Amino acid sequence: MRKTSELGERKLIEIIKNCLEMMPEAAVPFGDDVSAVQFDQNKVAVIKTDMLVGKTDVPEGMTLRQAARKAVVMNISDFAAKGVSPAAILVSLGLPRNYTENDVQQLALGLNDGAREYGTYVVGGDTNESSDLVISCSLLGFCNSQILVKRSEAKPGDIVAVTGEFGKTAAGLKILLEKIVVPEKIWNPLTEAVFTPKARLKEGIALAETGALSASIDSSDGLVWSLHELSVASNVGFRIDKIPVASEVIDFARTFHLDPFELALYGGEEYELVVIVKPDLWDKAETAVTNLGTKLTKIGVAIKEKKLELKLQDKALTLKPRGWEHFKS
Amino acid sequence: MRKTSELGERKLIEIIKNCLEMMPEAAVPFGDDVSAVQFDQNKVAVIKTDMLVGKTDVPEGMTLRQAARKAVVMNISDFAAKGVSPAAILVSLGLPRNYTENDVQQLALGLNDGAREYGTYVVGGDTNESSDLVISCSLLGFCNSQILVKRSEAKPGDIVAVTGEFGKTAAGLKILLEKIVVPEKIWNPLTEAVFTPKARLKEGIALAETGALSASIDSSDGLVWSLHELSVASNVGFRIDKIPVASEVIDFARTFHLDPFELALYGGEEYELVVIVKPDLWDKAETAVTNLGTKLTKIGVAIKEKKLELKLQDKALTLKPRGWEHFKS
Repeated sequence: MRKTSELGERKLIEIIKNCLEMMPEAAVPFGDDVSAVQFDQNKVAVIKTDMLVGKTDVPEGMTLRQAARKAVVMNISDFAAKGVSPAAILVSLGLPRNYTENDVQQLALGLNDGAREYGTYVVGGDTNESSDLVISCSLLGFCNSQILVKRSEAKPGDIVAVTGEFGKTAAGLKILLEKIVVPEKIWNPLTEAVFTPKARLKEGIALAETGALSASIDSSDGLVWSLHELSVASNVGFRIDKIPVASEVIDFARTFHLDPFELALYGGEEYELVVIVKPDLWDKAETAVTNLGTKLTKIGVAIKEKKLELKLQDKALTLKPRGWEHFKS
Repeated sequence: MRKTSELGERKLIEIIKNCLEMMPEAAVPFGDDVSAVQFDQNKVAVIKTDMLVGKTDVPEGMTLRQAARKAVVMNISDFAAKGVSPAAILVSLGLPRNYTENDVQQLALGLNDGAREYGTYVVGGDTNESSDLVISCSLLGFCNSQILVKRSEAKPGDIVAVTGEFGKTAAGLKILLEKIVVPEKIWNPLTEAVFTPKARLKEGIALAETGALSASIDSSDGLVWSLHELSVASNVGFRIDKIPVASEVIDFARTFHLDPFELALYGGEEYELVVIVKPDLWDKAETAVTNLGTKLTKIGVAIKEKKLELKLQDKALTLKPRGWEHFKS
């Protein structure tokens, strides 16, 4: 019988889902970035849980404080994708027996950093003994059911757009894992992306409020994988004709003879938003994000044919749906 | 510097709490069985997270399906203590690489068992790779702020009462851990208490609805520890004059020359309710529980002096506040 290591995270989720009875009339389909429960005629409570495990999610050089902050940020990012403000955070910790008082303080300070940075608080939790460091965060928020942007309503003709630039986290991880020596002016921004990722919460909330989005997701499993998820949920394809790659990534890739697009397309743990915008509301969406000092870049269009096509200059190719996956990566 | 193994779970929680900024005007104090966020003039969303780690929380002989069910039940029990019905469950899993497809199915079925048994559903989650089995559940519910029973409002003169009987889980764990050979008629109920614990959800909801409770908690860290927590939060003491010990526990203790009260007072992972009842509403509280086919037993009274006194027949002694604690137990 196959082991988890052969099955991979996505197959495991399918196996688990098949054993669960589904909540009837769930406000959000199982498998979206968040879950939601209706508590009023048009209001939902939104919840999310995401676990960080030291062994797989904390690269060498990242402090415990940064790791704990990241555990919060990766949850906030899913709320950002749906346009929901977090009201409270719970944290379950698994701590190795050899952690010191200072280690635990650093973790708690990192949790508080992440929470306060996004205007919320850690309101409770649980502490356990475990072999690995485990930080399992859960978020609660409230929003109008109309506001909540799902993955499933992109239509052919809709505009595909992203916040920010791509590739920094993948490049930074490569530098850290392979101990590549690079000049400080490249090392700093690329490892900063790994150590102190930011969630696009303000941008996500502003975008959702415009009513311009037909679908959205964060790019935490990689840009291509995010597009693949949107494609499956919305039953459309995407033709991508632009990839905003960070200039430091281009420099880094040039020096080490790497493909900058590979870093930008398939790197995970990058917390930008990938949004599908109704064409007639594009200006409204763009203005909402620009007003926050962030760039919203059109990268393509939703198409009827269910495939991911990349067309850069004169080359066209079909993107394979792969991305970061636990057990396999 | 001290390690987690020397500090113990309770000291760790204190260290963590001291590093966190507290939410102003939180609906429930930090450290209660659940957390709550007000979303309407008199309504709160209630949340809870509790993690099960295979290494410390799953004794030999317990199946993965039972372990996953238990991870849900221990969270439900905290909702039960506060009188809150669960609306949805999230689950973050940490799975070892050598787990098979069947192992994962068994876990998912156990999660579903626990959820459906208490009228709710698993609505989302996260899957990760870890060295230990880790099951981190989070619960969401809604209730009237007046309904939510805290730990902190017991008054001298209030009646101390418990649901059910005590000692079965401690005895069952002893049998399993020390591989003690006992007759089937004792083995079955005692190990059943370990493998298939039940949360007193209906009883907790019915009790909260009577308005008769001034404080409550579940007994998951042991009866004495629960009384200690209520004592600290409410700034009162308790004089206990009765301990409902299960008859199988008395039989087992007699055979093996053990103290049945030790098993009943200090065993953890037992999910009864420990409630403090306003004396004039005792009949209402008792009827609410009896109507569900469960016994509510008066075990003592809240006193002004902040101590835990046990008075059985002619012996009186002061109970030391100890109980189940991760890292120390």
